[in-house]
Amino acid sequence: MNKLRQDRQFRPLPVPSVEVHGLFGDRQDAICESTAEVLLDRCVEAGMLRAIDVEQPSPGIVIPLQAWSGSTQMFWDSDLGKSIETIAYSLYRRPNPRLEARVDAIVDMYEKLQDEDGYLNAWFQRVQPGRRWTNLRDHHELYCAGHLIEGAVAYYQATGKRKLLDVMARFADYMIEVFGHGEGQLPGYCGHEEIELALVKLARVTGEKKYLDLAKFFIDERGREPHFFTEEAIRDGRDPKQFIQKTYEYGQAHLPVREQKKVVGHAVRAMYLYSGMADIATEYNDDSLTTALETLWDDLTTKQMYVTGGIGPAASNEGFTDHYDLPNESAYAETCASVGLVFWASRMLGRGPNRRYADIMEQALYNGAMAGLSLDGKTFFYENPLESAGKHHRWIWHHCPCCPPNISRLLASIGSYMYAVADDEIAVHLYGESKGRFEIGGKKVELAQKTRYPWDGAIRFDVTTQDPVRFSLSLRIPEWAEGAALKLNGESVDLSNVTIDGYARIEREWRSGDRVELDIPLKPRTLWANPQVRQDTGRVALMRGPLVYCAEATDNGAGLNGIVLGGDISNAKTAEIAELQGAVALDISVARDKADDWGATLYRTSPPKVNQATARFVPYHLWDNRTPGEMLVWVRAGEVGR
Amino acid sequence: MNKLRQDRQFRPLPVPSVEVHGLFGDRQDAICESTAEVLLDRCVEAGMLRAIDVEQPSPGIVIPLQAWSGSTQMFWDSDLGKSIETIAYSLYRRPNPRLEARVDAIVDMYEKLQDEDGYLNAWFQRVQPGRRWTNLRDHHELYCAGHLIEGAVAYYQATGKRKLLDVMARFADYMIEVFGHGEGQLPGYCGHEEIELALVKLARVTGEKKYLDLAKFFIDERGREPHFFTEEAIRDGRDPKQFIQKTYEYGQAHLPVREQKKVVGHAVRAMYLYSGMADIATEYNDDSLTTALETLWDDLTTKQMYVTGGIGPAASNEGFTDHYDLPNESAYAETCASVGLVFWASRMLGRGPNRRYADIMEQALYNGAMAGLSLDGKTFFYENPLESAGKHHRWIWHHCPCCPPNISRLLASIGSYMYAVADDEIAVHLYGESKGRFEIGGKKVELAQKTRYPWDGAIRFDVTTQDPVRFSLSLRIPEWAEGAALKLNGESVDLSNVTIDGYARIEREWRSGDRVELDIPLKPRTLWANPQVRQDTGRVALMRGPLVYCAEATDNGAGLNGIVLGGDISNAKTAEIAELQGAVALDISVARDKADDWGATLYRTSPPKVNQATARFVPYHLWDNRTPGEMLVWVRAGEVGR
Repeated sequence: MNKLRQDRQFRPLPVPSVEVHGLFGDRQDAICESTAEVLLDRCVEAGMLRAIDVEQPSPGIVIPLQAWSGSTQMFWDSDLGKSIETIAYSLYRRPNPRLEARVDAIVDMYEKLQDEDGYLNAWFQRVQPGRRWTNLRDHHELYCAGHLIEGAVAYYQATGKRKLLDVMARFADYMIEVFGHGEGQLPGYCGHEEIELALVKLARVTGEKKYLDLAKFFIDERGREPHFFTEEAIRDGRDPKQFIQKTYEYGQAHLPVREQKKVVGHAVRAMYLYSGMADIATEYNDDSLTTALETLWDDLTTKQMYVTGGIGPAASNEGFTDHYDLPNESAYAETCASVGLVFWASRMLGRGPNRRYADIMEQALYNGAMAGLSLDGKTFFYENPLESAGKHHRWIWHHCPCCPPNISRLLASIGSYMYAVADDEIAVHLYGESKGRFEIGGKKVELAQKTRYPWDGAIRFDVTTQDPVRFSLSLRIPEWAEGAALKLNGESVDLSNVTIDGYARIEREWRSGDRVELDIPLKPRTLWANPQVRQDTGRVALMRGPLVYCAEATDNGAGLNGIVLGGDISNAKTAEIAELQGAVALDISVARDKADDWGATLYRTSPPKVNQATARFVPYHLWDNRTPGEMLVWVRAGEVGR
Repeated sequence: MNKLRQDRQFRPLPVPSVEVHGLFGDRQDAICESTAEVLLDRCVEAGMLRAIDVEQPSPGIVIPLQAWSGSTQMFWDSDLGKSIETIAYSLYRRPNPRLEARVDAIVDMYEKLQDEDGYLNAWFQRVQPGRRWTNLRDHHELYCAGHLIEGAVAYYQATGKRKLLDVMARFADYMIEVFGHGEGQLPGYCGHEEIELALVKLARVTGEKKYLDLAKFFIDERGREPHFFTEEAIRDGRDPKQFIQKTYEYGQAHLPVREQKKVVGHAVRAMYLYSGMADIATEYNDDSLTTALETLWDDLTTKQMYVTGGIGPAASNEGFTDHYDLPNESAYAETCASVGLVFWASRMLGRGPNRRYADIMEQALYNGAMAGLSLDGKTFFYENPLESAGKHHRWIWHHCPCCPPNISRLLASIGSYMYAVADDEIAVHLYGESKGRFEIGGKKVELAQKTRYPWDGAIRFDVTTQDPVRFSLSLRIPEWAEGAALKLNGESVDLSNVTIDGYARIEREWRSGDRVELDIPLKPRTLWANPQVRQDTGRVALMRGPLVYCAEATDNGAGLNGIVLGGDISNAKTAEIAELQGAVALDISVARDKADDWGATLYRTSPPKVNQATARFVPYHLWDNRTPGEMLVWVRAGEVGR
């Protein structure tokens, strides 16, 4: 029984089993063309290779290092790990021997860097060698290991090369010695979660249950009393109460995870933790974890999530504040956090399709996450505000370069988020032009998805099978998809008869030539926020399908808060924007405050005059890809339709 | 010609020449009763006396000092200076021998601390003795001196005791040796303006023009090239580009003052500079300064000022950002900055009454500034946001305790802002129950102002003169005062015939028994902001007279952004609130989003239901004096009246 159980229900389709086209395909092309190499180049520019290369002088102690390179952080291994992961996925789509050779060289460096006992962390081997495992709360050692493990798994799967995987498995074996309740072991866990979900991936690729057990150990220990972080600080001669973030909520270590009911602290940490918890819940059929996760899911999605799927409004803790506190202009809403929400949502689907999770996965993906990568794949957002006065722009690199490789690895592997498979069921969670290859009951099944989604809601599935094969095909019907219609081989299917948990489930013996047609009307809709969200009162957000729309100054001129949108937007016209790779814009008749005839005064007793005008709205995730300027998601709502 | 010229037009009435009652009187009572002593107590608790007392061990170098007391700053002399000034004014109203004795003891300490050459600064004598005059940009030495001079002048005027005045005059004489363009002199000025206006006060009380000349020197040198701060940094072995605030705009030293057109940088510094410039413009009849000041005035009041007279929206520089950038919830709007705006405005009245300045003086005083002091005089605001989610509250003390003594010294001396006098004219800038004693052409004149203003707009002036005396009485007619009416001895006076620059000017031979009645209707009014203020679009602020109103949760429950105010507020009812010392509240019928039946979802396609309700608005400066909670100034505007 030290081998991995295979009794969980749904697993994502492996990345190479999905051919991706359409919008996601365009993004993957940009990643193959630019981002994959850009990530590596910028890691190198930031000094990361000098840091891990034992042939070069050690970067020295902390302060000199800052002078030596202003762009590195204690956790640079994680950036390399995520970059390797991105490159690995990109190699499926477009073989790139030169890039692969660069990764091989990095892997060689890591192999040489690894200590005899298996320990591996550039910072604590090269910069602060005496400080290994002295401060799990702040030092990111296991976080870095987690990202290197994810990179190693992906690189092994993409290339068949085991070297980095073996290095990381040795490190994980060493962790098993270090962590535990035995004599001389540490009952600890990392302040920044990540190792948990990475160990699950390592277990799945190696078939070794011991890595799952370690992941579960980290999850089970988190937040228990006596508190590990407190005891560790005392051992290390530090005042346990003196640390920047002041509270263990920052790293979700304030309570045992099964007792947590409110999503708190650093948003990325929270998402990675819940992702790991969901994996462990699936692997161990652990209902106590699932119950906690469902409570946390509701808390996040009904009280703390931007309409973009952005999460974590505050810069101060890169994370959560109070329920219903969702400031727009100062929204932190880190790209990584929305990426993390996609990770979590996808893992909540491990126990079966449910649009409660998949709808949010799609919403976070298409808006909060995808905003993080420019169309050309070369520039990035870290924060994702829902309003900008025109000074927030994509950057080339960031002193904390976590987001670029994070959104890139997600998009480069998006196929595995689109499709999942169980013993006798295929679930389609996300729509988009693509082809998925499955094996059901030992038989090959191919599902060709033909669609222009998310620009158009007509979706066709053509089935090809080796032999006729019985399975269920589950297609998500988004909650917002009013008037969706389904046909099987030309015959209408009554959705109300076949829909379970928001998925239309067609069980039959499928054979080549079978065709399913799903039509999801993509009528623009206005959303109001719960009145407790003070920042959105009297305002509406515009959506079409899964996409949140925004107004940009480049289309509308400055003064976007002068726009007043009526409740009735049935007059909206669509337009394809060539500059945005054919994205669908919405042109809507609005009222608009006149600013030009106001005069010089700052305040007066009469309101501004109002014009009728047409405003153009474009998908939020595409903003700041053209002439930079103001941007606004929540526009003022008129009385019409109220 | 080294004596002070006396040819400027208007000077504020000295503090003891005005008896103040009504609302201002209540505040002064609270200051006499509590604040004056509280300020001194808290300075002592913060370790300031140990710092200046040469009988006690030196606080040591910087870092140990921080451990020694967490509440002191490099510029503590300024806090003592402002506290002494507050106490001095309070002694007119209420003699307090015990408090006066405490000040005398502090003055003795300063006398002992002063160096042989006249230098006086607790930090650079006791903590960093080798660093005198090495970093004018950051070190606040002249700023501290300025506040001690202001304190010394006020204390001398209140008590007749010259000791501190003599100490500070010696220091100023030493400054005259140190600063200038001569051999071995420094052509510098302080990074934090204040010394300029203080030297004007010193010149006025001593009659010594040399202090005016030094103030003018500091103003003239500011921002000139080659830049003093750059040269000083190089001399001191510092990189001139490496400093926290990055730009000389922070201290308004980016350009020579006469070339400055935009109000930039740290708000308090800007206000103190402009106050000094206005004084020098008056004293030297310097039109080049006046022209610059008028441009800066327009820039501030038409593009950068909250409706409360709060200024400086950003915490990052405690100051200004862009034109029309006036965020409400994150508004910094430091109490000191509004106090500084009152200082500046009052000095712009030095060359004659003009409501362009006096209206803003009143607006900043009654709202942005007075909010800084609680009704009981014991707690303080530093930041003054125009919206609070319920977590912004008055504090007992601040690590940078500049605001408490600043608003206190302003209110304790408010009489001198109410009345000004020229050779043949009395100007009444502010209304409020009071009695002013003047001397015109060698004859005593008493003006008794009888009114409940700002709660009621009926104002009566009764004149008492020694003998009949000819002068003009100028009464401000606020720009907002629609329908104001004036009577002289019962006879109506046509305002349009007598109003110049917004002041009704009655020139005649006045005699005892003359009565002037001014009626200023205090009808509530709604204000819209310039549409370029994105944060206020679709919203209105409510004012009545000079007072900005706000809604508080204690009156209205939570969810203040659910309130929608129609343009028509003629149905407003007034109510006197006993808890707020009889302040007039406004009860207005509004629409209000229903939050309780919305359900659990965060976003939905239908708007919230709307109720009719009555909302209560109270004067902004009185908020957070009752049960703490949400507060909102700019409420949503309905379509009514548009």
